[in-house]
Amino acid sequence: MNALRHTISLASLSTFQLLRRSKGQHIRGFLLGTGLGLTTFSVVTYADAAAAEDHAKVKQTLNASRFMAEPITDPKELLADKDNMRHRMELLILEIQAEFCRALEAEENCGQRFAVDRWKRAEGGGGITCVLQDGDVFEKAGVNISVVTGWLPPAAVEQMRARGKKLNSDKKLPFYASGVSAVIHPRNPHVPTIHFNYRYFEVETAKGEKQWWFGGGTDLTPYYLSEKDACHFHQTLKSACDEHDSTYYPRFKKWCDDYFRIKHRNESRGIGGIFFDDIDTPNQDSAFKFVSSCAKAVIPSYMPLVRNNKNREYGANERQWQLLRRGRYVEFNLIYDRGTKFGLYTPGARYESILMSLPLHARWEYMHEPSPKSEESKLLKVLRNPKEWV
Amino acid sequence: MNALRHTISLASLSTFQLLRRSKGQHIRGFLLGTGLGLTTFSVVTYADAAAAEDHAKVKQTLNASRFMAEPITDPKELLADKDNMRHRMELLILEIQAEFCRALEAEENCGQRFAVDRWKRAEGGGGITCVLQDGDVFEKAGVNISVVTGWLPPAAVEQMRARGKKLNSDKKLPFYASGVSAVIHPRNPHVPTIHFNYRYFEVETAKGEKQWWFGGGTDLTPYYLSEKDACHFHQTLKSACDEHDSTYYPRFKKWCDDYFRIKHRNESRGIGGIFFDDIDTPNQDSAFKFVSSCAKAVIPSYMPLVRNNKNREYGANERQWQLLRRGRYVEFNLIYDRGTKFGLYTPGARYESILMSLPLHARWEYMHEPSPKSEESKLLKVLRNPKEWV
Repeated sequence: MNALRHTISLASLSTFQLLRRSKGQHIRGFLLGTGLGLTTFSVVTYADAAAAEDHAKVKQTLNASRFMAEPITDPKELLADKDNMRHRMELLILEIQAEFCRALEAEENCGQRFAVDRWKRAEGGGGITCVLQDGDVFEKAGVNISVVTGWLPPAAVEQMRARGKKLNSDKKLPFYASGVSAVIHPRNPHVPTIHFNYRYFEVETAKGEKQWWFGGGTDLTPYYLSEKDACHFHQTLKSACDEHDSTYYPRFKKWCDDYFRIKHRNESRGIGGIFFDDIDTPNQDSAFKFVSSCAKAVIPSYMPLVRNNKNREYGANERQWQLLRRGRYVEFNLIYDRGTKFGLYTPGARYESILMSLPLHARWEYMHEPSPKSEESKLLKVLRNPKEWV
Repeated sequence: MNALRHTISLASLSTFQLLRRSKGQHIRGFLLGTGLGLTTFSVVTYADAAAAEDHAKVKQTLNASRFMAEPITDPKELLADKDNMRHRMELLILEIQAEFCRALEAEENCGQRFAVDRWKRAEGGGGITCVLQDGDVFEKAGVNISVVTGWLPPAAVEQMRARGKKLNSDKKLPFYASGVSAVIHPRNPHVPTIHFNYRYFEVETAKGEKQWWFGGGTDLTPYYLSEKDACHFHQTLKSACDEHDSTYYPRFKKWCDDYFRIKHRNESRGIGGIFFDDIDTPNQDSAFKFVSSCAKAVIPSYMPLVRNNKNREYGANERQWQLLRRGRYVEFNLIYDRGTKFGLYTPGARYESILMSLPLHARWEYMHEPSPKSEESKLLKVLRNPKEWV
């Protein structure tokens, strides 16, 4: 039985069986489910059926075939210690990445797929970068996970923490960081851009004491304001927060408004969402569950906005405005975003993964100001004075 | 005699008589000379001829009609103390701005003109921002001057100085800064982008001691490499430097290569030129003359490159490559450029003038790498390993 027959035999399995890059072999775009049917795939070149079946077995136990690529950590290790927070987080972000990529691919009308890059970091760890470029619905979509370990100067660790907890050390400290982040720039100006990022950090102090915390957030950048969409988006995030702590949404909504501010223009990047950092209460398990809820709220908060707006008509004016707002997006990311700055200043950083957040196209016009009472002006008003949506 | 007749009577004067925004009245695009002929202008509304003639007389004495707008400092003051370095510098930058704008306008085939914004800064001083957008030859061209005074924290002043001279003060210090800066993004990918900036600073220490220095530079960002053009550009700058000190060009050429480095990509923004800061030797007069020579070398270094390449054929591939390189330009300016960062973090900064350096369009592709042996790849090689041109 050759690999081609093997993949066909898998066609009777449940939805979303995705097989990519296993044992160094490259298998592309084999996707079933959600009404898309069987799409093209490149030739599979397993040396023999036995090896393939053996491999598939290991993967099935972990259910890793659902991921965009092999986990960063050895699957045996991930399975052996399922309670380890590093492993729980890695499995979560692998799952979030795969589900979101598939949900986005399902909206593409001409079968555009994510390209997958699994990379290793010389200093320890690695990541999986998934990029869909020039789709008919998504102009540029990047969904990234990374799991890295290494040594950081205390100043750098402190910079990573919003509350700036002192670490009292002049030595480099061992750290671990894992997270998922995504930025989706759709083509139709009536579909907003979404960004989210959920991350987990560990750092060991000079005394050998382990500190850990979670951070993250989801925020929306529309080009045209739909009050209905804005309310749906915020309500979905609020519900995810409310499951855990009713003070979370109002606090993290404000934190988001404060963080995503393009200070020199005195306007926000978008209409916000939630943003938090340094979460280490009430305990590790609860904090993880809160982050999971938020990450799992991304698809229900965003995909209806894509489906309802992706086929709306637009013209050159709407496109120009979208490109101008994308210029503002670039300004925020390159000037203010802590993650981008921290990433680019880290030696050996994979800048292509960090800069995947930048749009395919952006525009800067001198002194552009939309005419009063226009739809563009209506959006600007909200960007200048963030409002409560729910 | 109404103002319209008055302007027509000026038509017999020598070339480059330009009259804009005087006495709060807005006069646009009245330009004679260099074979362009008389172009359109909006209505002039002087109340009476006497006032207009009186005003023209004052302007003529200063020869201010050649400038893009009225000087920032009261013309009477400028004339009264011609030896004052602040005044010498203001007159130099007014002249450089006007000559460069006119030289660029002369290359536009359809008569596109610079829009002129004369602005005041609440804290003291102001500037003149000239922008030409969507021309047939220049996609976006910005030529800016500013003359500002105010109070700065010592840390900010030290950051402005490359050698980081300590000021030993914990109080805010009075400062003065004036300069001209320009970024020209042509439409044809065979015409390089040019940037230059020449500036003069004064700061008074806590002891009442005045420190002053000059800074500046000119650098080129081609999209396709022409060895001949690169050599001409560097040779023109070298000649300007050599008039003053034969060690300047080699030192300032290296400084430029080091400064305009996109560190995360390990490549240069362009093919360099000259860059220097903190020049206060051998004396103020000589330093000013050196800066004048550099500023006056801009037109001969660049305009032949525009004229020889602006009508060359190009296709979609060349345009895409140009937009990708413009993305890199944005990365450098927003992440590394000291002037941009210093500007945007200064409260009350005029961000539109600072960000006028950004191109009209830019593009970011994930993992773009030109094919080996292509013209794009030939440029990249030089950007990765800067070379000597003269």
